[in-house]
Amino acid sequence: MSTRKLMVVSTSTVYGKGYLEYCQEDVKDFFKEASTVIFIPFARPGGISHDEYTAIAREKFTSLGITLKGVHEFDDPVKAIEEAQGVFTGGGNTFVLLKQLYDQGVLLPLRKRITEGMPYMGTSAGSNITGLTISTTNDMPIVYPPSFEALQVLPFNINPHYLDPNPDSKHMGETRETRIKEFHYFNEQAVVGLREGSWLLVDGDQITLKGTLPVRMFEKGKDPYELPADADLSFLLS
Amino acid sequence: MSTRKLMVVSTSTVYGKGYLEYCQEDVKDFFKEASTVIFIPFARPGGISHDEYTAIAREKFTSLGITLKGVHEFDDPVKAIEEAQGVFTGGGNTFVLLKQLYDQGVLLPLRKRITEGMPYMGTSAGSNITGLTISTTNDMPIVYPPSFEALQVLPFNINPHYLDPNPDSKHMGETRETRIKEFHYFNEQAVVGLREGSWLLVDGDQITLKGTLPVRMFEKGKDPYELPADADLSFLLS
Repeated sequence: MSTRKLMVVSTSTVYGKGYLEYCQEDVKDFFKEASTVIFIPFARPGGISHDEYTAIAREKFTSLGITLKGVHEFDDPVKAIEEAQGVFTGGGNTFVLLKQLYDQGVLLPLRKRITEGMPYMGTSAGSNITGLTISTTNDMPIVYPPSFEALQVLPFNINPHYLDPNPDSKHMGETRETRIKEFHYFNEQAVVGLREGSWLLVDGDQITLKGTLPVRMFEKGKDPYELPADADLSFLLS
Repeated sequence: MSTRKLMVVSTSTVYGKGYLEYCQEDVKDFFKEASTVIFIPFARPGGISHDEYTAIAREKFTSLGITLKGVHEFDDPVKAIEEAQGVFTGGGNTFVLLKQLYDQGVLLPLRKRITEGMPYMGTSAGSNITGLTISTTNDMPIVYPPSFEALQVLPFNINPHYLDPNPDSKHMGETRETRIKEFHYFNEQAVVGLREGSWLLVDGDQITLKGTLPVRMFEKGKDPYELPADADLSFLLS
């Protein structure tokens, strides 16, 4: 029986709404027992600094009555994770994020805390790293991390910002579905295609799909299939 | 004075045409002194086998009067590269391709032959690897190569299948331009955004943009800019 508590969010921002606005009540509820949450800004969206990124997340969390501190603000980031009441990792570039987690020695302590039941929320790249590997990221490999192995607190992979093929496109680059099919020539684990506006709520051995959209599931050797909002995805843990 | 000869092609196939059809006269001319060309099928588009992929390329090359042999058909792939009159690397997944080039010990011999003047043509992933690194690929990192360093026969990076932002999109994932901007927070080299239907013809220290479309250029610290078809891009070598 696992005690993990995760909120695995496809995107921080949906079209036409503010940062984390569409899921803010769920964020507040998820962190209800944490007076302070540690923010991991390592993914640096658009190359912004850790301070700039933390300021964006802090503004939102403050409005929800939660104190947010950037992990880079601590002299000892490992200790900050070891003592955290909750952690939120924002999106950006998954390679940059994972490399920093390795370089700063934060990956293993973070894995341990999540396994012990500390609430962890990620958006986009921050969600990608909850799975076995970052091999189903959509990001550009702009830095070389020492491994693609991620937090591995969930026994599958996440594809955030899942995007359906555009039937009108004349572009010959691979669709997302083709890419994930290629992934399964070389890897075994299931891939959860989380559309923008969806998230997984993980409580121990229970996984529930939240938001209003269906999820697209990719299992090796099966045709992709959809499960509706509020679906029970706990089977992914067995 | 370099003797390299490269045809760095964005995509093998443009919308509505057959495999390599739109540039077939240029392919024929490029390999006019090679009676046999070695095909590197390692990128495995859609996960197809080396034999299946080679059959597709062979059909086209045969129609152009060029004998094509898959590098995997040789007992000694390194020797095959060392003795090749020309090499063509097809597209697919750039990570799978680069990992195989390292695993089979083919990367360094191939670099040496290109430097010595053996004609090399790549499409998509096969073009991506001509640059310094594969860090501007669009592909999913489905396998972990021992390095992102590529053939490095050109002192910049390629972004094949360059795609302009869709002004109507409500998707919140990063645009290609945003990704390349993020690349420049961590890397110095220029990035050539090659649209589908464009290619670079490299002859020693001369680079010419071929096809009918402009190229989108990304240099660190500058706004992106465009250069028209037939532009001289030799400045990228200085």
